[in-house]
Amino acid sequence: MSTVKLASQPTIKRLPSYLHVIENAQKDGKEFISGTVIADELGLEPIQVRKDLAVTGIVGKPRIGFPVNKLIKAIYAFLCWDRDHQAIVVGAGNLGTALMGYPEFNRRGMRIVAAFDMDKRKIGRRIHDTEVFALGQMAEKLKDLDIQIAILTVPSNHAQAVAELLVKSGVRAIWNFTNVKLRVPEHVTVQKEDLSSGYAVLSVKMTISAASARK
Amino acid sequence: MSTVKLASQPTIKRLPSYLHVIENAQKDGKEFISGTVIADELGLEPIQVRKDLAVTGIVGKPRIGFPVNKLIKAIYAFLCWDRDHQAIVVGAGNLGTALMGYPEFNRRGMRIVAAFDMDKRKIGRRIHDTEVFALGQMAEKLKDLDIQIAILTVPSNHAQAVAELLVKSGVRAIWNFTNVKLRVPEHVTVQKEDLSSGYAVLSVKMTISAASARK
Repeated sequence: MSTVKLASQPTIKRLPSYLHVIENAQKDGKEFISGTVIADELGLEPIQVRKDLAVTGIVGKPRIGFPVNKLIKAIYAFLCWDRDHQAIVVGAGNLGTALMGYPEFNRRGMRIVAAFDMDKRKIGRRIHDTEVFALGQMAEKLKDLDIQIAILTVPSNHAQAVAELLVKSGVRAIWNFTNVKLRVPEHVTVQKEDLSSGYAVLSVKMTISAASARK
Repeated sequence: MSTVKLASQPTIKRLPSYLHVIENAQKDGKEFISGTVIADELGLEPIQVRKDLAVTGIVGKPRIGFPVNKLIKAIYAFLCWDRDHQAIVVGAGNLGTALMGYPEFNRRGMRIVAAFDMDKRKIGRRIHDTEVFALGQMAEKLKDLDIQIAILTVPSNHAQAVAELLVKSGVRAIWNFTNVKLRVPEHVTVQKEDLSSGYAVLSVKMTISAASARK
């Protein structure tokens, strides 16, 4: 479990945005990028960026910065994005459909190979080139597929039952977009996505900003 | 700017999930809830929970816990969710539609009063009871509405242009779901939502979990 202790969750969460900036530098033909440049681009403190990037094991050179190609590779490796993760979407509603069309995931190793839904009008259709199957077909379908991640976007009242079906089918990681705290066996990893978190930060930031503008 | 310094962004991001647990305790008729119970429910350390909740100013009693009703009120006040925030959605695609139907936002003071899109098939329709207007009508529409938040879910190549239109129309906070780093004047608050962050955490956690299972 050493990696968990070496890198805090906030650090892991910031790495994708660093990757974005560093990949843009690569596109611009740059060989090195400094922590200060990354920090400026993202509105963070340089010390924070350097501390976060230390988890990759890549060391920056004073006054030159980090080697772009090596750093990109190291972030991919650290995030385990240097290998493919096969995924399914369970619940092909608006959010599920939006996630299936999110171009970034594919670039980061996530392969969404099937979707499942209860709505007969959706079953058999393709969404963003991925076929939608009936929820009842899931156990059978998953036998043939080596699925690592299930993206859970069903209505909240179905979340726990579907999660149990996923666990029975051998899925070991659930990305939970419902507002239900899932009860799953210990060997199953759950990452809960709460859109209210971002709203909370926005709400506090904008209120402070409005208050300081009035001063 | 004292609140920003008193509460770190990770703390603010955790408060909505605490609120969820505490509101459930309220529904169950409980008058007090301990930091340990909240921590257990969310898989966090009790010390973390108590530290985070300290920002609300509500003090827990030893062996009894925090007063439920007071704590809920204090979290609402801290997150500025005790007042209404009028919002618009710009980009009524799948993600925009999903956000317009997210029931939690309404309970947290966010009132989505209009949506804007370029697609003629959507303009004039209602999505989750909210009318969709043409992007070209935005400046005019916003004159009559006191909008605090614009939720930006347009395709990335339109993000900067739409953000400039929003700023011109007087919007002071943008919740940015595109992968573009927006250039806006300093008085405008931007909160960037990066779905890759959650995927990064999931990816690292599940890889570590798989590795430790093999041991």
